[in-house]
Amino acid sequence: MSEEKLPKQSENFSEWYNQLIQRAELADYAPVRGCMVVRPYGWALWENIQKALDKRFKETGHVNAAFPMFIPMSFLEKEKEHVEGFSPELAIVTIGGGQTLEEPLVVRPTSETIIGHMYAKWVKSYRDLPILINQWANVVRWEMRTRMFLRTLEFYWQEGHTAHETAEEAEEETLKILNLYADFAINEAAVPVIPGIKSEAEKFAGANKSYTIEAMMLDTKALQSGTSHNLGQNFAKAFEIQYLDRNNELQYAWTTSWGVSTRFVGAIIMSHGDDQGLILPPRLAPIQIVIVPIFKNDDDREKVMKVVRDLEKDLAQFRVKVDDRDNLTPGFKFNDWEMRGVPLRLELGPRDVDNQTVVVAQRDIPGKSGKLFLPMENLASQLETILNDFHDRLLKKATDFRDSHIFEPNNYVEFQEVVQNGWAYVYWCGDAVCETAIKNETKATTRCRPLGQEKSHGKCIYCGKDAEYKTYFAKAY
Amino acid sequence: MSEEKLPKQSENFSEWYNQLIQRAELADYAPVRGCMVVRPYGWALWENIQKALDKRFKETGHVNAAFPMFIPMSFLEKEKEHVEGFSPELAIVTIGGGQTLEEPLVVRPTSETIIGHMYAKWVKSYRDLPILINQWANVVRWEMRTRMFLRTLEFYWQEGHTAHETAEEAEEETLKILNLYADFAINEAAVPVIPGIKSEAEKFAGANKSYTIEAMMLDTKALQSGTSHNLGQNFAKAFEIQYLDRNNELQYAWTTSWGVSTRFVGAIIMSHGDDQGLILPPRLAPIQIVIVPIFKNDDDREKVMKVVRDLEKDLAQFRVKVDDRDNLTPGFKFNDWEMRGVPLRLELGPRDVDNQTVVVAQRDIPGKSGKLFLPMENLASQLETILNDFHDRLLKKATDFRDSHIFEPNNYVEFQEVVQNGWAYVYWCGDAVCETAIKNETKATTRCRPLGQEKSHGKCIYCGKDAEYKTYFAKAY
Repeated sequence: MSEEKLPKQSENFSEWYNQLIQRAELADYAPVRGCMVVRPYGWALWENIQKALDKRFKETGHVNAAFPMFIPMSFLEKEKEHVEGFSPELAIVTIGGGQTLEEPLVVRPTSETIIGHMYAKWVKSYRDLPILINQWANVVRWEMRTRMFLRTLEFYWQEGHTAHETAEEAEEETLKILNLYADFAINEAAVPVIPGIKSEAEKFAGANKSYTIEAMMLDTKALQSGTSHNLGQNFAKAFEIQYLDRNNELQYAWTTSWGVSTRFVGAIIMSHGDDQGLILPPRLAPIQIVIVPIFKNDDDREKVMKVVRDLEKDLAQFRVKVDDRDNLTPGFKFNDWEMRGVPLRLELGPRDVDNQTVVVAQRDIPGKSGKLFLPMENLASQLETILNDFHDRLLKKATDFRDSHIFEPNNYVEFQEVVQNGWAYVYWCGDAVCETAIKNETKATTRCRPLGQEKSHGKCIYCGKDAEYKTYFAKAY
Repeated sequence: MSEEKLPKQSENFSEWYNQLIQRAELADYAPVRGCMVVRPYGWALWENIQKALDKRFKETGHVNAAFPMFIPMSFLEKEKEHVEGFSPELAIVTIGGGQTLEEPLVVRPTSETIIGHMYAKWVKSYRDLPILINQWANVVRWEMRTRMFLRTLEFYWQEGHTAHETAEEAEEETLKILNLYADFAINEAAVPVIPGIKSEAEKFAGANKSYTIEAMMLDTKALQSGTSHNLGQNFAKAFEIQYLDRNNELQYAWTTSWGVSTRFVGAIIMSHGDDQGLILPPRLAPIQIVIVPIFKNDDDREKVMKVVRDLEKDLAQFRVKVDDRDNLTPGFKFNDWEMRGVPLRLELGPRDVDNQTVVVAQRDIPGKSGKLFLPMENLASQLETILNDFHDRLLKKATDFRDSHIFEPNNYVEFQEVVQNGWAYVYWCGDAVCETAIKNETKATTRCRPLGQEKSHGKCIYCGKDAEYKTYFAKAY
C-alpha cells in the first residue's frame, strides 16, 4: 500500500475510483492497452458474484456449457443489426499456425451467433426445447476509452442463451432473469437496482426488447449493471433454429440472451465506497472479518495469538483473515483493511482475553460510534446478525442516496439542471428524435422505463407531445 | 441419442472415443476447425474436476486471479526456448477496432510471459514472496491434428504460476503440486497416474525441469494428464522479477508453473469406459445416481412417482437425476444412462414400493450380478458405501490393467514388441540420440522417470551403455 493519501471521493470521484482499485489490489493495468489484470482480491470478489449468480441460474433450471471464443466472420454477418452494432469493436485473428487464415476469426464480443449455429444443430423437435444454457466466459470489445472493470477490451461475464417454443415463454424467461438479476444485486450486493426496459436506441444489437437493471453510483451517474434480451425469432431465422412443433409443423424457435459482467465489480465499488476506500457488501466480500491481534511484548503475543487462533476456528462459517504480519503496527493494519473494505474488524488485546470480550469495528460507521464491545460467548451468532444488519444498512444508505437524487422536473430547463447531479424521471414521447436531442444537449441518456409502471398521461419533457410513460434519464457510464 | 450401435471399444478404440463423446453429449464439433463445444454434460464433469482441484489449491495457500488473454508478440520473444517452442502454434490478432495493430497480439498459448511481466511489477522485497497464483482460463494452440478434449485449438485449463525466494522452495512447490495432481487423479477420478520427471526433450519450453502425471489409457497408450514445471530463474531473468533479499541484496526470483486441462476429461473417458459407453468415477460424475420409475398404468404411476419424489429428497446429498420422460421405455432409459456412464441406477416399480425395497444397478458390473436389492430404510448411507466401493473398484481395475501392460523387456527386440501393446519400463542412458532413434523406430516416446526411484545400474535398452535409471517408454496421445 502506498503511503500517499487516496484522493477524496467528493473531490475527484474518477481518480478516487482509479487509485482505489490499484491500492486495494483489485486490479492492475495490463501491458496491452485497455486490458486489466484482475488481482486475487478482485477475483475473489468476482468468484463470490459468480457463486451467487450461478446458484440462482441452477435453481431455475439452467446449465453451464462452453462455446469457442473464435467465431467465423461470416457468422456475425448473418444478423444485420448485430453485425452493424459489433463490427467497429472487433478483434480479429488473421494468422494461425504461421499461415494467413482463409476466413478471419473474430474473438467473440458476445456469442449469440455461434450458439445460434449450434442450437440449430441440436434442436429438432419441441421435445428439445427449452434449451437453458449459460456460459462463464471472457469476451473482447475493442473499446477506445476504457476504465477498469467498467469498460475493458477483454472482460469476464456470464452469458445465458435460451431457446423456447413460444414467444410467451421467451418473454417469461427474459423477465425471470431480469428479476433474478435484481434479486442478486439487492440481496447479495446491496445495490438497489431499478429493473426496466431499454429504449429502441439503447437496446442490444439484434434484440426485439432489452431489459436492464440500472444502478445509481455515488457520483449520481447511472451504471447499466446487467441486461436481459428478448431476441424474438431474429437469431433463430438467421441461424435456422427450427423445430417440429406439437402439430408436426416446422417452426422457428424464440430465443433470449442475458449477461452480467465484471462491470458489476465497478457497481459495488461506486455504490458503497467512501473517502477511506472500499466498503464491501458482506455477502460478497472476499474477507468478511479481519482479526487484528494487539500486543506489546512476547508474553502478551502468546496469550493473544492463542485466543486469536481459537477464534479463527470458531468463526469458520465466515470468510476470516487473521492479520498476523509482524512488521506492521495495528494502526497501519486498521487503515489498510478499511481501505480494502472488509466489513468487520475484530480487535483483540491482552485485556480482551482477560475479560473474554472482543472489539468489533464496523467499516461503514467510522470512529467510536461504530465500535461494538462483545462478549466472546456465542460470538458467531452475534456476528451473523451484525453482518446481516450491515447489509441492510448498506442497502438502505444506497437506496436513500439514490432516491434523494431522482428528480421529477416540470420542464426542460429544470430537466437540464437536475441531470447535472441526479436522474430525471419524466414523461417522454418515445420518439428517438427527442432522445437524441436530449443526449446531445445534456449528455443524459434514457436509462429505462421501470417495470410495473401503469400507463398514464403526460407531456414529453422535450417536445411537449402526449406521452404515456415516464422514463429515467441520466448521465451514464 | 442415435439408434445406431456404438463401435466396440476393442475393435475401433478411436471411433469408439469420438462417437461416444458426441452420443453422450459431452462435446460437439464447433464450426471452427479444431475447436469443440463442451456441452452441459461435459462441462458439468469439468466443473467437478475444477472444484476438486480448486479446493486443493486453496487448501495449500494458492489464490485465483485473471490475466489477459492477449500477449504482445515481443513478450514471447524474451525467453528464447519458450518462443521457439510455441511460435509454430500461435493464433495472432492483427486487427482491432478496424485498424491494423502496430504490434500484433498473440492469443495466449500459456501465460508465463505476461504473468512474469506483472510479477516483476509486484515483487519488490522478499516479503512479497512467495506469490502463489492460479488462473482458470482458456488458451489457444494452433494444432494441426486435433481430437476432442485431447488436443483442441482452444482448450480450458488451470495454470498455476508461483514465484519464490529460493531454488529449494521452487522445487518444493513443483513437487507439492505434482503430488496434489496425483492425489486428485487417484482419489477423485480413479485414474492411477504415475508421477515422474520428463526427459530434456519432452520438457516444457523454458523449464529447467518438467514433472508429469502419466496415465495408461485402455488402448495402452499413455496420456500426459498434468504437468508441473520448475522454471528456475529463466523467466525471472527474461522479465526481471527481482527482489531485495533478507540481506538487502537484489536477487532474481525462482518460478514454477503447472497445469491440468480439459484433456483430463479424455483421461477419464479412456481409463474407465467400455463397449456400452462411459463409466464415470462417482466423485466427479455430474449425475451419480439416476432414478428410473417403472409402471404400466396411471395408478401405478402415481404410486411410484410419489415414492420417487420422496427418494429424490432423501438422497439430496448426492447428484441425483429422476428420469421421468414419458415418451421413452425403461429399457431405452437404462441403455441411455449406461452409455452416459452414470454410476448407479435405481429402479423402482410398484412391487418395490409395496416391499419398501429398491433395485440398484451398478454401471461397472454388467447384467444381474451387478444388481443389488436394498431395503429403502437407511438408503442414503448404504449408497454412500456403494459409491465408495465403486470408486475403489474402478481404481483397482484401471491399476490392474495398467500393471498388466507394463513390461520390462530384456533387449531392444523385445522392447519393439511390447510397446506395440503396452509400456516398456527400461534402462535408458539419458542420451537424446537414443530417445530420438527409439521414437523414430517404434513411435514410443519417453513418458517419465518415476519419482522415488533409487539409482541402480543397468544398460541402456538402445545403445547398451551404462544407465542409472529406468524410464517408461510408450506410444502416447
